[in-house]
Amino acid sequence: MMRLQRSDVIGFLADGVATSSSSIDLIRGAQDAAWERGKQMMLFNIEQGAPSHRLADSQLTAFRAEAVIYAARYHQAVKLPVSSVPRILLNCFDPEGRHTAVIPDDYSLARGLADVVFARGFRRPIFLNLASTIVAAGLRASGISDAARERGIDMGPRIHTAVEEREGEITFVADRLLASLMAEPEENRPDVIICGQDILAMDVYFDLAELGYKIGRDVSVVSFDNLEPIARLLKPGLSTMELPYYEMGRAAMLAAIDHPPHPETIRLPGRFVDRASLSMAAGA
Amino acid sequence: MMRLQRSDVIGFLADGVATSSSSIDLIRGAQDAAWERGKQMMLFNIEQGAPSHRLADSQLTAFRAEAVIYAARYHQAVKLPVSSVPRILLNCFDPEGRHTAVIPDDYSLARGLADVVFARGFRRPIFLNLASTIVAAGLRASGISDAARERGIDMGPRIHTAVEEREGEITFVADRLLASLMAEPEENRPDVIICGQDILAMDVYFDLAELGYKIGRDVSVVSFDNLEPIARLLKPGLSTMELPYYEMGRAAMLAAIDHPPHPETIRLPGRFVDRASLSMAAGA
Repeated sequence: MMRLQRSDVIGFLADGVATSSSSIDLIRGAQDAAWERGKQMMLFNIEQGAPSHRLADSQLTAFRAEAVIYAARYHQAVKLPVSSVPRILLNCFDPEGRHTAVIPDDYSLARGLADVVFARGFRRPIFLNLASTIVAAGLRASGISDAARERGIDMGPRIHTAVEEREGEITFVADRLLASLMAEPEENRPDVIICGQDILAMDVYFDLAELGYKIGRDVSVVSFDNLEPIARLLKPGLSTMELPYYEMGRAAMLAAIDHPPHPETIRLPGRFVDRASLSMAAGA
Repeated sequence: MMRLQRSDVIGFLADGVATSSSSIDLIRGAQDAAWERGKQMMLFNIEQGAPSHRLADSQLTAFRAEAVIYAARYHQAVKLPVSSVPRILLNCFDPEGRHTAVIPDDYSLARGLADVVFARGFRRPIFLNLASTIVAAGLRASGISDAARERGIDMGPRIHTAVEEREGEITFVADRLLASLMAEPEENRPDVIICGQDILAMDVYFDLAELGYKIGRDVSVVSFDNLEPIARLLKPGLSTMELPYYEMGRAAMLAAIDHPPHPETIRLPGRFVDRASLSMAAGA
């Protein structure tokens, strides 16, 4: 006889949660949704493939988890072993589309951000992008380029990789890039610097100060993340496209509970948070 | 007949986890310890006294939790309703000492930090403290004052409250304080600014830049937290006394599993993280 009793337990495997401050919003969103639907979420902090991962799987089996959410630290492709328990991928996706995935809509986030920038009259943006191996880097470059093309602006020479990753250690190289870009004659000098993430924008704030440029007077800065508390506390406050981590956590939990009949990809929009770093420099 | 079977479940109530980036290390430490001891931690994100709190309690009863860890957002006194399940207080304490509590040793953290500062030759510190209603503010002021007194320095006029809290919204007022303090004649001008937390130090970085002072040349800055990624990415990197959140999470979980026979207070030490913001200015 089949066992029909539901366990009401949903597993949540957070891969590398320790190194990411976005994780807390992914977790919070998932947990709030679980609660509203009378489910209990079991959280595991794992490293993919490590003993912690196998141990989590065995505990989730013991608790008869109805589904398992697998959350990645940043938007990426992952390949998980096949499992009898439904898997929902959060902030990541299966390249073969075998699992429902919840990811940020990085293309439209970037396009929306660029639309704001252009609507304010900026015409000489540069985009300091994340490492090109990052999924979001390519999608965002496309979104910004498409928005620019509609205004007759070619982003080709205006996109620069400003983050280098060596052995897991991230280095920002915006200081080198900005020194020469800002030294251009006025007709070529950037009027706005679009940063691939808020912590890079923070670095840019210091680089610009070191070079003697004032944000809001000489150049504007805008970014992605709305990372708490950095974006709010930078001076001037950082205008930034918020990543929908809380909503992604919720969506993943609802998918885990409702089991969509076929795997689907859920892309969630961002929210532009307007602070002084963009608006003040409109006439630069 | 008594039911002797163990549930192996430990509850973890995180009060206001959403607003704190320290929470993730409290959670991570507790979870790793649970795992090593074959326990399953159930995490709840709650607001004290709200329906979420009562719902967590009822779920933990349903899962027959062996003990419950209650984690606060910052070091504070809390009064929890009496319960038949053992409670461990994490980052908080019961004023009547009825529960085992795991807290940061804020007095010794501050004393240790001040010892480093004085050992490097600084003699005109100012301490930009948190709001005086915060438990840590008083303990840290004592720790710094005692270390200073041993060197014949009176911290009395050198401690300033630099954080104002109104309706839950925090405002930094370091800009007002620094403008006048830094304008003092050289023999009175601060040679090092000790900040009550890293996000305040970040604010101080911007204030000093705005006032035309360079950290490492004109004045040093040191702080508490080692908040990821801010402390590492500030320029110059921020020397700071790390709060032992991960270790506190571990200690709370071990206490939850082992049930000390009498309530005790476990105070954990910090770790000084040395970056350029302190060392560079030794001759200032």
